[in-house]
Amino acid sequence: MVQTIQSIGEQGLIKLVQSYCPENLVGDDAAVFATAPGQSIVVTTDVLVDQVHFSDRTTPPHSVGWRSVAANLSDLAAMGASPIGITVGLALPGETTVDWVEQVYEGMRDCLNEFGGAIVGGDIARSTVRTISITAIGEVEPARVMRRSQAQIGDAIVVTGFHGSSRAGLELLLHPELGDEFDEADRQALIRAHQYPQPRLAVRRLLGQGNPIAGMDSSDGLADAVCQMARASGVGARIERSAISMRPALAKIAPEKALEWALYGGEDFELVLCMHLERAQAILPKLPSGAAIVGQVTADPAVLLVDGANMIAELSRDRGFQHFST
Amino acid sequence: MVQTIQSIGEQGLIKLVQSYCPENLVGDDAAVFATAPGQSIVVTTDVLVDQVHFSDRTTPPHSVGWRSVAANLSDLAAMGASPIGITVGLALPGETTVDWVEQVYEGMRDCLNEFGGAIVGGDIARSTVRTISITAIGEVEPARVMRRSQAQIGDAIVVTGFHGSSRAGLELLLHPELGDEFDEADRQALIRAHQYPQPRLAVRRLLGQGNPIAGMDSSDGLADAVCQMARASGVGARIERSAISMRPALAKIAPEKALEWALYGGEDFELVLCMHLERAQAILPKLPSGAAIVGQVTADPAVLLVDGANMIAELSRDRGFQHFST
Repeated sequence: MVQTIQSIGEQGLIKLVQSYCPENLVGDDAAVFATAPGQSIVVTTDVLVDQVHFSDRTTPPHSVGWRSVAANLSDLAAMGASPIGITVGLALPGETTVDWVEQVYEGMRDCLNEFGGAIVGGDIARSTVRTISITAIGEVEPARVMRRSQAQIGDAIVVTGFHGSSRAGLELLLHPELGDEFDEADRQALIRAHQYPQPRLAVRRLLGQGNPIAGMDSSDGLADAVCQMARASGVGARIERSAISMRPALAKIAPEKALEWALYGGEDFELVLCMHLERAQAILPKLPSGAAIVGQVTADPAVLLVDGANMIAELSRDRGFQHFST
Repeated sequence: MVQTIQSIGEQGLIKLVQSYCPENLVGDDAAVFATAPGQSIVVTTDVLVDQVHFSDRTTPPHSVGWRSVAANLSDLAAMGASPIGITVGLALPGETTVDWVEQVYEGMRDCLNEFGGAIVGGDIARSTVRTISITAIGEVEPARVMRRSQAQIGDAIVVTGFHGSSRAGLELLLHPELGDEFDEADRQALIRAHQYPQPRLAVRRLLGQGNPIAGMDSSDGLADAVCQMARASGVGARIERSAISMRPALAKIAPEKALEWALYGGEDFELVLCMHLERAQAILPKLPSGAAIVGQVTADPAVLLVDGANMIAELSRDRGFQHFST
């Protein structure tokens, strides 16, 4: 018989969930932990809702846990911070299986084990829809904070990896017939990009000292990230179409959709950084596969997609995913 | 026409919500803030779900916002910490009115303005059920952390205010006919206790230096708090029935239910503290109205409700509110 959380009761569920937390942080009204001297605290939060941000069809529970942590760690990475811990708020229907909850926590723990941080607190509530709310807390040396507003005219725009893969993976999961004729390894690479995104926390250590760097993650798409940084910095940008890095599998499986997904697909969780060209060129070889200089910050406030000297399109945030638009 | 969040779109909603945050914390992937040197960080999280933790019938949206913040600040108070800020994760149906969201944020801001802290981050998602997830971050001098496990045999058990009022207020809201014959001021005092609980952050400054104090808040009821601290400390307790402080209005309106609601009602958000008797006697006059010494920590591991020398009942957590029990 499948065990539900209703059948083990709230105390049983709390015990299960606490087994994923360090023992010294459990059992009080709140968790207490020290931070390194001189560091600022960084905090970010994400709410994930069943059928909106995940579904049984596209994300097994282990991946749900991984993704929900990865999305938050990616926000810390975008600020130049390193993770300390997360809190997990779960709202669940009573008929949710214990196995589902365990797998979600396994996924969260696996992601934290790989990238840093621990589960430092949480809450569980009854609801009619599975909802996961994660708050990540990190620390950062104040001089190394990356902000969206720090892009300088002339800066190179750097991405830390491929774009479009997560959206392509989602499409393959939703429409398995799409990739039938293609190589299984290619299909799996794209599906994995969707189910197991890699927050770019290691990038911070590669940037070294220097002028402030503008940074943001591409959770809402590459176009959105560039547009937001340009607006926050009072500048514009030119993105070179041919420089946008995509996995070879993406071009094979959906050649006519690849550019759109790379620009607007979202959830690739790469960093988009603006910095001096020389610095960009120096760190590029150390960055993950797919990292590239994709464009340049301009004085003209428009954000343009170009092909050499030819303007292809003006980019905007409008085509990104908007939760409440009709 | 009533404006819904669907009609103003995600960007409109984000703008509205950001107007409640300090400007320097808005606009990046995460908020960055400094903490005082030598302080430890304290973090706690709560998930509140429509029809489980609040409802249009019993809590106007301003009270929903106040209560959701107060519950988290109370957890900080229970650790001896003071608030820095909160993050707010909202999951909302598209037909939620803009006015509801504004009132919730007004309530959150009013509570923060009174007790400390700011809204430092958040996220908004689409859902079928209104869900509010709050994480509060505070700071505490490491030597002054209060833990559940620090109760000592012989300690006095102190409550910082009345118990049972919140539950009585809820009953009056659910069954308005209950209080018909009673004084309107009495009714309103109990309703106010339910809708606008007061986190006991000021208590921390009154405790002074000394041995560690055991502390917890009574969010899940006075009996639950005493039982949890006793278990965590490997001790027991005797609670003197006549010492449990209740508002006079409670005894008037529901004389036969008053003791049950005081012990098991929950959501009074008072602190329950264990400390040396002399210390308790010294601070008692400075504590809020309703504060009292209600019992004593014992070597015998049972938690007993007594009337002088007579044992009335053995208290347990079982009658407290359990989300998933059937």
